[in-house]
Amino acid sequence: MRIVVPAGGTGGARFVRGLLAALAEAGEPADVTVVGNTGDDITLWGLRVCPDLDTVTYTLAGAIDEAKGWGRPDETFTVRDELAGYGVLPTWFGLGDRDLATHLTRTSLLASGATLSEATATIAARWGLPGLGVTLLPMSDSPVETHVLVQHPDDPAGAPPRLVHFQEYWVGLRAAPRALDVVAVGAEQARPAPGVLEAVAAADVVLLPPSNPVVSIGTVLAVPGVRAALEASAAPVVGVAPLVGGAVVRGMADRLLPALGVEVDAGAVALHYGASLLDGWLVDTSDVHAVAPVEQAGIACRAVPLLMTDVPATARIAAEALRLAEAVRA
Amino acid sequence: MRIVVPAGGTGGARFVRGLLAALAEAGEPADVTVVGNTGDDITLWGLRVCPDLDTVTYTLAGAIDEAKGWGRPDETFTVRDELAGYGVLPTWFGLGDRDLATHLTRTSLLASGATLSEATATIAARWGLPGLGVTLLPMSDSPVETHVLVQHPDDPAGAPPRLVHFQEYWVGLRAAPRALDVVAVGAEQARPAPGVLEAVAAADVVLLPPSNPVVSIGTVLAVPGVRAALEASAAPVVGVAPLVGGAVVRGMADRLLPALGVEVDAGAVALHYGASLLDGWLVDTSDVHAVAPVEQAGIACRAVPLLMTDVPATARIAAEALRLAEAVRA
Repeated sequence: MRIVVPAGGTGGARFVRGLLAALAEAGEPADVTVVGNTGDDITLWGLRVCPDLDTVTYTLAGAIDEAKGWGRPDETFTVRDELAGYGVLPTWFGLGDRDLATHLTRTSLLASGATLSEATATIAARWGLPGLGVTLLPMSDSPVETHVLVQHPDDPAGAPPRLVHFQEYWVGLRAAPRALDVVAVGAEQARPAPGVLEAVAAADVVLLPPSNPVVSIGTVLAVPGVRAALEASAAPVVGVAPLVGGAVVRGMADRLLPALGVEVDAGAVALHYGASLLDGWLVDTSDVHAVAPVEQAGIACRAVPLLMTDVPATARIAAEALRLAEAVRA
Repeated sequence: MRIVVPAGGTGGARFVRGLLAALAEAGEPADVTVVGNTGDDITLWGLRVCPDLDTVTYTLAGAIDEAKGWGRPDETFTVRDELAGYGVLPTWFGLGDRDLATHLTRTSLLASGATLSEATATIAARWGLPGLGVTLLPMSDSPVETHVLVQHPDDPAGAPPRLVHFQEYWVGLRAAPRALDVVAVGAEQARPAPGVLEAVAAADVVLLPPSNPVVSIGTVLAVPGVRAALEASAAPVVGVAPLVGGAVVRGMADRLLPALGVEVDAGAVALHYGASLLDGWLVDTSDVHAVAPVEQAGIACRAVPLLMTDVPATARIAAEALRLAEAVRA
């Protein structure tokens, strides 16, 4: 069973880890293509940083800081602390020393002419992803950078809102200013990375993990051709609501959905994706109110426990998603 | 008293530290311009590394690993160890985590259009060099990279000798292959960095520390205009022999002098520099045999203890050099 999973960072990575556990439990060989969001990518300290790709890689390799959900465990921040002494490079996005090796390697590969796909494959191979049955593809080899329109707190009163890089909004400003709009800069000119459309066309199932629907899945869908390929695919597309009980479990999707005029509600996110994309949708048992309106829109909907508290719980969610995919296929 | 010191890494840095101590002891304000060798510079991990400039900076700031003579104390190598896992970037030149912040800062400054002089000034300021009365200038803003001609041990028998970067020879090959020639690649096209010729012209004294005469001082002298300016300067030029008892105290000058046809001897080094450059020369008391031939060549020569065992001993050597400078001036 060929499974394609467009994914963001922590939520997407944990969902894929659960999916692999569910497949193993079912005695099903894993053949999972993860199409990773690269809209959060940023060039920092002269290095190309791809937070979501790395979170997927580290998580699947068991090399993630579980508490934080990103970065390496037992991480040190010697380089960042020393950089602060110079005051030349920004330290609000604190890259760890272990993690830094990944960015140095990727940046050197890119500088020597490799595409982001090739660099990602090299990094994924070092962490054993192929052996897990996982192919990690960036959504695109062209740079796409998500920007958020905000009234910047550093600007004088009366200054017009301006676009800031997603990481500056998310990490630097801690998502405090109201997001007025979200723009995937470069998306219109981007093309899907090699293998993305092919994987979608050959997929038996497409699963949308509970990643941020605006800046993770939304950015993958913003790459021209990706959404159309998913809509055209014969494979059922089943999504997992990123909201539980009308609130985010982690991340800050609730700060971004309003910028797109979408209600912070599990059902509203399904309707935002739309019936042209989704065949099935899982909401949490606390969001059972959402089942009827989602089904009314032509999307099969089930209410099941959606808290990814640990790998077994996440595996049960992934198994439910696969079960719903089989149901809508039939 | 305006003092100019062309300098390499550890030996040059320790000499300047002793010079500052000698000036302080004499109640003389420090006004020292160090013209740092940049021929050892290398681009590694995508970062511009200037080993000699950094060794001078760290040493004068008291932020040097005293035992090694280079790098930061209490250094960790987390990034290097993680890079080894990828196998993409070479790890034979192990940059430490603390040290890495310097190279990231310099590389970013250069990438944003700063000259090496400007980047060096920023780094030197962070470490308080201006407050010590020291101006650190790179010998040139143009890249000059010392290469060594060797029969490479990885090459098949009968293969012709080839040029390897000085760092590969020094660190990677541990100076084991015989050096057949030493070439300062890029030197012919290089120009002295802003301030170098001005400092030499305005100098009251020029001191050549016991740095490597081939790849440290030799490379500074290879920048067109530098040697001529030193020769034309009214200031006495006094050097300190880098050999004691016919052997190197540290470093591997003994591996490189033969490539230039120079005997591994304190007197031979003075004659290699030549009377057109040198007005005075200090040899160790164990090399008193060298005094007569050096004086015969027209260079005032004194035999004094030259082991830089600690700062006070080094200060005494620097004071002897200043004393000899006054003697030849009179």
